[in-house]
Amino acid sequence: MPIENYLPFWQKLTSTQRDTLSRTATLHRAKKGAVLHNGAEDCEGLLLIVEGQLRAFTLSDEGKEITLYRLLSRDICLFSASCMLGSIQFDISVEAEQDTTFYQIPPKIYKQLMEESAPVSNYTNELISSRFSDVMWLMDQILYKRLDSRLAAFLLEESTLSGTTELKITHDTIARHLGSAREVVTRMLKYLQSEGAVTLSRGNVAIADEKKLRKLARESLR
Amino acid sequence: MPIENYLPFWQKLTSTQRDTLSRTATLHRAKKGAVLHNGAEDCEGLLLIVEGQLRAFTLSDEGKEITLYRLLSRDICLFSASCMLGSIQFDISVEAEQDTTFYQIPPKIYKQLMEESAPVSNYTNELISSRFSDVMWLMDQILYKRLDSRLAAFLLEESTLSGTTELKITHDTIARHLGSAREVVTRMLKYLQSEGAVTLSRGNVAIADEKKLRKLARESLR
Repeated sequence: MPIENYLPFWQKLTSTQRDTLSRTATLHRAKKGAVLHNGAEDCEGLLLIVEGQLRAFTLSDEGKEITLYRLLSRDICLFSASCMLGSIQFDISVEAEQDTTFYQIPPKIYKQLMEESAPVSNYTNELISSRFSDVMWLMDQILYKRLDSRLAAFLLEESTLSGTTELKITHDTIARHLGSAREVVTRMLKYLQSEGAVTLSRGNVAIADEKKLRKLARESLR
Repeated sequence: MPIENYLPFWQKLTSTQRDTLSRTATLHRAKKGAVLHNGAEDCEGLLLIVEGQLRAFTLSDEGKEITLYRLLSRDICLFSASCMLGSIQFDISVEAEQDTTFYQIPPKIYKQLMEESAPVSNYTNELISSRFSDVMWLMDQILYKRLDSRLAAFLLEESTLSGTTELKITHDTIARHLGSAREVVTRMLKYLQSEGAVTLSRGNVAIADEKKLRKLARESLR
Protein backbone atom coordinates (compact mmCIF):
# COMPACT_ATOMS: atom_id res chain seq x y z
CA MET A 1 0.00 0.00 0.00
CA PRO A 2 2.38 2.73 -1.16
CA ILE A 3 1.24 6.25 -0.31
CA GLU A 4 0.89 7.23 -3.98
CA ASN A 5 -2.20 5.01 -4.25
CA TYR A 6 -3.95 7.19 -1.71
CA LEU A 7 -3.21 10.65 -3.02
CA PRO A 8 -5.27 11.69 -6.07
CA PHE A 9 -2.82 14.48 -6.88
CA TRP A 10 0.26 12.21 -6.94
CA GLN A 11 0.58 12.31 -10.73
CA LYS A 12 0.70 16.09 -10.63
CA LEU A 13 3.62 16.30 -8.22
CA THR A 14 7.22 16.84 -9.26
CA SER A 15 9.67 14.04 -8.51
CA THR A 16 11.19 16.14 -5.72
CA GLN A 17 7.78 16.60 -4.14
CA ARG A 18 7.07 12.88 -4.41
CA ASP A 19 10.40 12.05 -2.79
CA THR A 20 9.74 14.43 0.07
CA LEU A 21 6.30 12.99 0.71
CA SER A 22 7.47 9.37 0.55
CA ARG A 23 10.38 10.12 2.86
CA THR A 24 8.45 12.05 5.53
CA ALA A 25 5.10 10.25 5.67
CA THR A 26 5.03 7.56 8.32
CA LEU A 27 2.79 4.51 8.59
CA HIS A 28 0.94 3.95 11.88
CA ARG A 29 -1.56 1.62 13.43
CA ALA A 30 -4.16 2.67 16.00
CA LYS A 31 -6.24 0.34 18.12
CA LYS A 32 -10.02 0.77 18.18
CA GLY A 33 -10.83 3.44 20.74
CA ALA A 34 -7.50 5.26 20.49
CA VAL A 35 -7.73 9.06 20.40
CA LEU A 36 -5.61 10.31 17.48
CA HIS A 37 -6.29 13.99 17.80
CA ASN A 38 -7.60 16.05 20.64
CA GLY A 39 -8.48 19.70 20.08
CA ALA A 40 -6.44 22.61 18.87
CA GLU A 41 -3.27 22.05 20.87
CA ASP A 42 -2.43 18.95 18.83
CA CYS A 43 -1.05 19.22 15.33
CA GLU A 44 0.17 15.76 14.39
CA GLY A 45 -0.31 16.21 10.69
CA LEU A 46 -2.66 14.90 8.04
CA LEU A 47 -3.98 11.42 8.59
CA LEU A 48 -4.41 9.44 5.40
CA ILE A 49 -6.48 6.36 6.10
CA VAL A 50 -5.30 3.12 4.56
CA GLU A 51 -7.72 0.84 6.36
CA GLY A 52 -10.13 1.25 9.23
CA GLN A 53 -12.48 3.95 10.44
CA LEU A 54 -12.04 7.25 12.25
CA ARG A 55 -14.69 9.38 13.91
CA ALA A 56 -14.43 13.17 14.15
CA PHE A 57 -16.41 14.79 16.92
CA THR A 58 -16.64 17.93 18.98
CA LEU A 59 -16.50 17.84 22.70
CA SER A 60 -18.00 20.48 24.97
CA ASP A 61 -16.61 21.61 28.30
CA GLU A 62 -19.19 19.39 29.94
CA GLY A 63 -17.99 16.37 27.97
CA LYS A 64 -20.94 16.29 25.59
CA GLU A 65 -20.09 14.91 22.17
CA ILE A 66 -21.49 15.37 18.69
CA THR A 67 -20.26 13.14 15.90
CA LEU A 68 -19.43 15.39 12.94
CA TYR A 69 -18.41 12.85 10.34
CA ARG A 70 -16.62 9.58 9.76
CA LEU A 71 -13.49 8.88 7.73
CA LEU A 72 -12.95 5.61 5.88
CA SER A 73 -10.24 4.14 3.66
CA ARG A 74 -8.68 6.78 1.33
CA ASP A 75 -10.18 9.66 3.31
CA ILE A 76 -7.87 12.34 4.64
CA CYS A 77 -8.22 13.87 8.06
CA LEU A 78 -7.17 17.47 7.67
CA PHE A 79 -8.14 18.97 10.99
CA SER A 80 -5.47 17.00 12.81
CA ALA A 81 -3.16 19.38 10.94
CA SER A 82 -5.22 22.52 11.47
CA CYS A 83 -2.14 24.45 12.61
CA MET A 84 -1.17 24.70 8.95
CA LEU A 85 -4.37 26.62 8.17
CA GLY A 86 -4.43 29.90 10.05
CA SER A 87 -8.15 30.35 9.61
CA ILE A 88 -9.17 27.09 11.22
CA GLN A 89 -10.10 28.10 14.72
CA PHE A 90 -12.10 25.30 16.13
CA ASP A 91 -11.30 22.14 18.00
CA ILE A 92 -12.33 18.71 16.99
CA SER A 93 -11.31 15.34 18.32
CA VAL A 94 -10.60 12.25 16.29
CA GLU A 95 -10.73 8.67 17.51
CA ALA A 96 -10.32 5.29 15.88
CA GLU A 97 -13.67 3.56 15.68
CA GLN A 98 -12.03 0.44 14.26
CA ASP A 99 -8.42 -0.73 14.29
CA THR A 100 -6.98 1.70 11.79
CA THR A 101 -3.86 1.85 9.62
CA PHE A 102 -2.91 5.31 8.40
CA TYR A 103 -0.15 7.46 6.99
CA GLN A 104 0.75 10.58 8.90
CA ILE A 105 2.04 13.50 6.83
CA PRO A 106 3.86 16.28 8.74
CA PRO A 107 1.92 19.59 8.62
CA LYS A 108 4.97 21.56 7.45
CA ILE A 109 5.52 19.26 4.50
CA TYR A 110 1.90 19.41 3.44
CA LYS A 111 1.69 23.18 3.87
CA GLN A 112 4.72 23.60 1.64
CA LEU A 113 3.17 21.30 -0.96
CA MET A 114 -0.03 23.35 -0.92
CA GLU A 115 1.94 26.52 -1.44
CA GLU A 116 3.86 25.08 -4.36
CA SER A 117 1.15 23.10 -6.06
CA ALA A 118 -2.28 24.31 -7.17
CA PRO A 119 -3.57 20.72 -7.58
CA VAL A 120 -2.71 19.95 -3.93
CA SER A 121 -4.28 23.19 -2.76
CA ASN A 122 -7.41 22.62 -4.83
CA TYR A 123 -7.72 19.08 -3.56
CA THR A 124 -7.46 20.45 -0.01
CA ASN A 125 -10.19 22.94 -0.87
CA GLU A 126 -12.51 20.14 -1.84
CA LEU A 127 -11.69 18.27 1.39
CA ILE A 128 -12.51 21.26 3.56
CA SER A 129 -15.65 22.04 1.57
CA SER A 130 -16.81 18.49 1.90
CA ARG A 131 -16.42 18.48 5.69
CA PHE A 132 -18.03 21.90 5.86
CA SER A 133 -21.01 20.48 4.00
CA ASP A 134 -21.22 17.59 6.46
CA VAL A 135 -21.32 19.99 9.37
CA MET A 136 -23.84 22.32 7.72
CA TRP A 137 -26.11 19.34 7.11
CA LEU A 138 -25.82 18.32 10.73
CA MET A 139 -26.51 21.83 11.91
CA ASP A 140 -29.58 21.94 9.72
CA GLN A 141 -30.80 18.64 11.14
CA ILE A 142 -30.26 19.77 14.68
CA LEU A 143 -31.50 23.32 14.46
CA TYR A 144 -34.38 23.01 12.12
CA LYS A 145 -35.66 19.45 12.17
CA ARG A 146 -37.66 18.51 15.19
CA LEU A 147 -36.19 15.94 17.53
CA ASP A 148 -39.32 13.77 17.73
CA SER A 149 -39.24 13.18 13.98
CA ARG A 150 -35.52 12.59 13.92
CA LEU A 151 -35.68 10.18 16.80
CA ALA A 152 -38.46 8.25 15.10
CA ALA A 153 -36.49 8.14 11.84
CA PHE A 154 -33.36 7.01 13.68
CA LEU A 155 -35.16 4.15 15.48
CA LEU A 156 -36.71 2.92 12.23
CA GLU A 157 -33.35 3.01 10.50
CA GLU A 158 -31.64 1.12 13.32
CA SER A 159 -34.41 -1.44 13.23
CA THR A 160 -33.94 -1.95 9.49
CA LEU A 161 -30.15 -2.21 9.85
CA SER A 162 -30.28 -4.72 12.70
CA GLY A 163 -33.26 -6.66 11.36
CA THR A 164 -35.14 -6.56 14.66
CA THR A 165 -37.65 -4.33 16.42
CA GLU A 166 -35.87 -4.91 19.76
CA LEU A 167 -33.03 -2.40 19.70
CA LYS A 168 -30.19 -2.89 22.16
CA ILE A 169 -29.13 0.72 22.46
CA THR A 170 -28.66 3.18 25.30
CA HIS A 171 -30.23 6.64 25.44
CA ASP A 172 -26.75 8.04 25.60
CA THR A 173 -25.77 6.42 22.31
CA ILE A 174 -28.96 7.68 20.66
CA ALA A 175 -28.27 11.16 21.99
CA ARG A 176 -24.76 11.16 20.53
CA HIS A 177 -26.09 10.06 17.15
CA LEU A 178 -28.68 12.82 17.18
CA GLY A 179 -26.50 15.55 18.58
CA SER A 180 -28.77 15.88 21.57
CA ALA A 181 -28.48 15.38 25.31
CA ARG A 182 -29.28 12.10 27.02
CA GLU A 183 -31.97 13.70 29.18
CA VAL A 184 -33.64 15.21 26.13
CA VAL A 185 -33.62 11.85 24.36
CA THR A 186 -34.92 10.06 27.46
CA ARG A 187 -37.74 12.54 27.72
CA MET A 188 -38.60 12.20 24.07
CA LEU A 189 -38.45 8.40 24.29
CA LYS A 190 -40.83 8.50 27.26
CA TYR A 191 -43.13 10.69 25.22
CA LEU A 192 -43.01 8.16 22.39
CA GLN A 193 -43.68 5.40 24.91
CA SER A 194 -46.66 7.27 26.32
CA GLU A 195 -47.93 7.54 22.75
CA GLY A 196 -47.59 3.77 22.43
CA ALA A 197 -44.94 4.02 19.68
CA VAL A 198 -42.13 2.37 21.65
CA THR A 199 -41.64 0.29 24.80
CA LEU A 200 -38.67 1.04 27.04
CA SER A 201 -36.71 -1.26 29.28
CA ARG A 202 -33.13 -1.19 30.56
CA GLY A 203 -30.72 -0.76 27.59
CA ASN A 204 -33.55 -1.62 25.25
CA VAL A 205 -35.92 0.28 22.99
CA ALA A 206 -38.63 -1.82 21.37
CA ILE A 207 -40.66 -0.54 18.46
CA ALA A 208 -44.28 -1.07 19.46
CA ASP A 209 -46.09 0.78 16.69
CA GLU A 210 -44.11 1.07 13.51
CA LYS A 211 -46.89 2.87 11.67
CA LYS A 212 -47.00 5.60 14.28
CA LEU A 213 -43.23 6.04 14.14
CA ARG A 214 -43.31 6.24 10.35
CA LYS A 215 -45.90 8.98 10.55
CA LEU A 216 -43.75 10.93 12.99
CA ALA A 217 -40.62 10.45 10.91
CA ARG A 218 -42.45 11.60 7.78
CA GLU A 219 -43.83 14.79 9.22
CA SER A 220 -40.44 16.47 9.32
CA LEU A 221 -39.83 15.67 5.68
CA ARG A 222 -42.51 17.98 4.34
CA MET B 1 -11.59 51.48 -6.60
CA PRO B 2 -9.87 49.16 -9.06
CA ILE B 3 -10.35 45.46 -8.37
CA GLU B 4 -6.65 44.87 -7.71
CA ASN B 5 -6.95 46.75 -4.42
CA TYR B 6 -9.33 44.10 -3.17
CA LEU B 7 -7.52 40.91 -4.10
CA PRO B 8 -4.57 40.02 -1.84
CA PHE B 9 -3.19 37.63 -4.45
CA TRP B 10 -3.12 40.21 -7.26
CA GLN B 11 0.68 40.59 -7.18
CA LYS B 12 1.06 36.86 -7.69
CA LEU B 13 -1.03 36.69 -10.85
CA THR B 14 0.41 36.69 -14.36
CA SER B 15 -0.47 39.65 -16.57
CA THR B 16 -2.83 37.42 -18.60
CA GLN B 17 -4.64 36.41 -15.44
CA ARG B 18 -4.92 40.04 -14.35
CA ASP B 19 -6.33 41.02 -17.72
CA THR B 20 -8.91 38.26 -17.62
CA LEU B 21 -10.03 39.24 -14.13
CA SER B 22 -10.24 42.95 -14.89
CA ARG B 23 -12.15 42.24 -18.09
CA THR B 24 -14.71 39.81 -16.68
CA ALA B 25 -15.40 41.19 -13.20
CA THR B 26 -18.38 43.53 -13.15
CA LEU B 27 -19.25 46.25 -10.67
CA HIS B 28 -22.72 46.22 -9.14
CA ARG B 29 -24.79 48.07 -6.60
CA ALA B 30 -27.43 46.46 -4.41
CA LYS B 31 -30.02 48.26 -2.32
CA LYS B 32 -30.34 47.43 1.34
CA GLY B 33 -32.60 44.40 1.65
CA ALA B 34 -31.83 43.00 -1.80
CA VAL B 35 -31.27 39.23 -1.92
CA LEU B 36 -28.05 38.57 -3.83
CA HIS B 37 -27.95 34.82 -3.54
CA ASN B 38 -30.60 32.32 -2.73
CA GLY B 39 -29.69 28.70 -2.15
CA ALA B 40 -27.92 26.17 -4.31
CA GLU B 41 -29.68 26.82 -7.62
CA ASP B 42 -28.01 30.22 -7.96
CA CYS B 43 -24.38 30.54 -9.00
CA GLU B 44 -23.78 34.20 -9.78
CA GLY B 45 -20.11 34.16 -8.96
CA LEU B 46 -17.87 35.48 -6.24
CA LEU B 47 -18.95 38.71 -4.64
CA LEU B 48 -16.10 41.00 -3.69
CA ILE B 49 -17.36 43.73 -1.42
CA VAL B 50 -16.15 47.24 -2.12
CA GLU B 51 -18.44 48.99 0.32
CA GLY B 52 -21.46 48.00 2.35
CA GLN B 53 -22.50 44.92 4.27
CA LEU B 54 -23.81 41.50 3.33
CA ARG B 55 -25.40 38.94 5.58
CA ALA B 56 -25.16 35.18 4.96
CA PHE B 57 -27.87 33.07 6.52
CA THR B 58 -29.59 29.72 6.30
CA LEU B 59 -33.29 29.42 5.87
CA SER B 60 -35.34 26.43 6.97
CA ASP B 61 -38.39 25.05 5.20
CA GLU B 62 -40.47 26.83 7.81
CA GLY B 63 -38.80 30.15 7.07
CA LYS B 64 -36.70 30.27 10.24
CA GLU B 65 -33.39 32.07 9.71
CA ILE B 66 -30.00 31.86 11.36
CA THR B 67 -27.35 34.43 10.55
CA LEU B 68 -24.09 32.59 9.84
CA TYR B 69 -21.74 35.50 9.31
CA ARG B 70 -21.42 38.97 7.85
CA LEU B 71 -19.24 40.28 5.05
CA LEU B 72 -17.81 43.77 5.05
CA SER B 73 -15.55 45.79 2.76
CA ARG B 74 -12.79 43.62 1.20
CA ASP B 75 -14.51 40.38 2.20
CA ILE B 76 -15.26 37.84 -0.48
CA CYS B 77 -18.50 35.90 -0.62
CA LEU B 78 -17.56 32.52 -1.96
CA PHE B 79 -20.73 30.55 -1.51
CA SER B 80 -22.55 32.55 -4.13
CA ALA B 81 -20.20 30.68 -6.47
CA SER B 82 -20.54 27.31 -4.80
CA CYS B 83 -21.12 25.60 -8.16
CA MET B 84 -17.38 25.91 -8.77
CA LEU B 85 -16.66 23.75 -5.72
CA GLY B 86 -18.12 20.28 -6.21
CA SER B 87 -18.01 19.49 -2.52
CA ILE B 88 -20.11 22.40 -1.33
CA GLN B 89 -23.51 20.88 -0.85
CA PHE B 90 -25.43 23.26 1.28
CA ASP B 91 -27.63 26.23 0.65
CA ILE B 92 -27.14 29.63 2.10
CA SER B 93 -28.77 32.90 1.27
CA VAL B 94 -27.06 36.26 1.05
CA GLU B 95 -28.72 39.64 1.36
CA ALA B 96 -27.51 43.23 1.42
CA GLU B 97 -27.85 44.61 4.92
CA GLN B 98 -26.69 48.02 3.78
CA ASP B 99 -26.57 49.54 0.32
CA THR B 100 -23.64 47.59 -1.09
CA THR B 101 -21.20 48.04 -3.96
CA PHE B 102 -19.46 44.90 -5.09
CA TYR B 103 -17.54 43.23 -7.87
CA GLN B 104 -18.94 40.03 -9.26
CA ILE B 105 -16.41 37.52 -10.61
CA PRO B 106 -17.79 34.77 -12.87
CA PRO B 107 -17.42 31.30 -11.27
CA LYS B 108 -15.73 29.83 -14.37
CA ILE B 109 -13.06 32.52 -14.37
CA TYR B 110 -12.31 32.09 -10.69
CA LYS B 111 -12.28 28.30 -10.92
CA GLN B 112 -9.74 28.49 -13.71
CA LEU B 113 -7.61 30.90 -11.68
CA MET B 114 -7.68 28.51 -8.73
CA GLU B 115 -6.59 25.66 -10.95
CA GLU B 116 -3.71 27.64 -12.40
CA SER B 117 -2.53 29.48 -9.33
CA ALA B 118 -1.57 28.01 -5.96
CA PRO B 119 -1.75 31.46 -4.26
CA VAL B 120 -5.37 31.91 -5.41
CA SER B 121 -6.26 28.41 -4.33
CA ASN B 122 -4.57 28.83 -0.96
CA TYR B 123 -6.31 32.13 -0.41
CA THR B 124 -9.62 30.42 -1.17
CA ASN B 125 -8.71 27.73 1.33
CA GLU B 126 -8.30 30.33 4.02
CA LEU B 127 -11.63 31.92 3.11
CA ILE B 128 -13.50 28.63 3.36
CA SER B 129 -11.72 27.72 6.58
CA SER B 130 -12.57 31.06 8.09
CA ARG B 131 -16.29 30.72 7.31
CA PHE B 132 -16.17 27.13 8.49
CA SER B 133 -14.75 28.36 11.80
CA ASP B 134 -17.52 30.96 12.13
CA VAL B 135 -20.16 28.30 11.68
CA MET B 136 -18.47 25.86 14.06
CA TRP B 137 -18.29 28.54 16.71
CA LEU B 138 -21.95 29.36 16.30
CA MET B 139 -22.92 25.72 16.40
CA ASP B 140 -20.86 25.14 19.51
CA GLN B 141 -22.31 28.11 21.37
CA ILE B 142 -25.88 27.42 20.39
CA LEU B 143 -25.87 23.64 20.81
CA TYR B 144 -23.74 23.22 23.86
CA LYS B 145 -23.95 26.35 25.85
CA ARG B 146 -27.23 27.89 24.73
CA LEU B 147 -25.19 31.01 25.31
CA ASP B 148 -27.42 33.13 23.07
CA SER B 149 -30.40 32.35 25.23
CA ARG B 150 -28.58 32.59 28.52
CA LEU B 151 -27.01 35.91 27.62
CA ALA B 152 -30.36 37.33 26.51
CA ALA B 153 -32.03 36.16 29.73
CA PHE B 154 -29.21 37.63 31.81
CA LEU B 155 -29.42 41.03 30.12
CA LEU B 156 -33.18 41.20 30.57
CA GLU B 157 -32.86 40.28 34.21
CA GLU B 158 -30.19 42.91 34.80
CA SER B 159 -32.35 45.47 33.07
CA THR B 160 -35.31 44.65 35.31
CA LEU B 161 -33.11 44.76 38.42
CA SER B 162 -31.52 48.09 37.58
CA GLY B 163 -34.67 49.64 36.12
CA THR B 164 -32.91 50.78 32.93
CA THR B 165 -32.16 49.45 29.46
CA GLU B 166 -28.68 51.02 29.60
CA LEU B 167 -26.63 48.47 31.49
CA LYS B 168 -23.32 49.58 32.98
CA ILE B 169 -21.59 46.24 32.96
CA THR B 170 -18.32 44.88 31.59
CA HIS B 171 -18.08 41.81 29.37
CA ASP B 172 -15.87 40.28 32.00
CA THR B 173 -18.58 40.58 34.64
CA ILE B 174 -21.15 39.06 32.30
CA ALA B 175 -18.77 36.21 31.53
CA ARG B 176 -18.33 35.50 35.21
CA HIS B 177 -22.10 35.45 35.73
CA LEU B 178 -22.58 33.01 32.88
CA GLY B 179 -19.56 30.82 33.60
CA SER B 180 -18.08 31.69 30.25
CA ALA B 181 -14.98 33.49 28.98
CA ARG B 182 -14.83 37.23 28.28
CA GLU B 183 -13.87 36.77 24.63
CA VAL B 184 -16.78 34.40 24.11
CA VAL B 185 -19.23 36.85 25.68
CA THR B 186 -17.81 39.73 23.61
CA ARG B 187 -18.27 37.74 20.43
CA MET B 188 -21.82 36.74 21.31
CA LEU B 189 -22.67 40.34 22.29
CA LYS B 190 -21.39 41.43 18.87
CA TYR B 191 -23.57 38.77 17.31
CA LEU B 192 -26.58 40.12 19.24
CA GLN B 193 -25.62 43.65 18.19
CA SER B 194 -25.43 42.67 14.55
CA GLU B 195 -28.89 41.16 14.97
CA GLY B 196 -30.12 44.49 16.30
CA ALA B 197 -30.93 43.18 19.77
CA VAL B 198 -28.38 45.25 21.70
CA THR B 199 -26.11 48.25 21.17
CA LEU B 200 -22.58 48.16 22.53
CA SER B 201 -20.39 50.96 23.73
CA ARG B 202 -17.52 51.13 26.19
CA GLY B 203 -18.56 49.54 29.50
CA ASN B 204 -22.14 49.71 28.35
CA VAL B 205 -24.68 47.30 26.91
CA ALA B 206 -27.94 48.87 25.79
CA ILE B 207 -31.01 46.80 25.09
CA ALA B 208 -32.14 47.88 21.64
CA ASP B 209 -34.90 45.38 20.93
CA GLU B 210 -36.39 43.89 24.08
CA LYS B 211 -38.88 41.77 22.17
CA LYS B 212 -36.11 40.10 20.20
CA LEU B 213 -34.16 39.42 23.39
CA ARG B 214 -37.24 37.95 25.08
CA LYS B 215 -37.76 35.64 22.14
CA LEU B 216 -34.12 34.52 22.26
CA ALA B 217 -34.22 34.04 26.04
CA ARG B 218 -37.26 31.85 25.63
CA GLU B 219 -36.24 29.53 22.88
CA SER B 220 -32.55 29.90 21.92
CA LEU B 221 -31.74 29.60 18.23
CA ARG B 222 -31.94 25.88 18.25
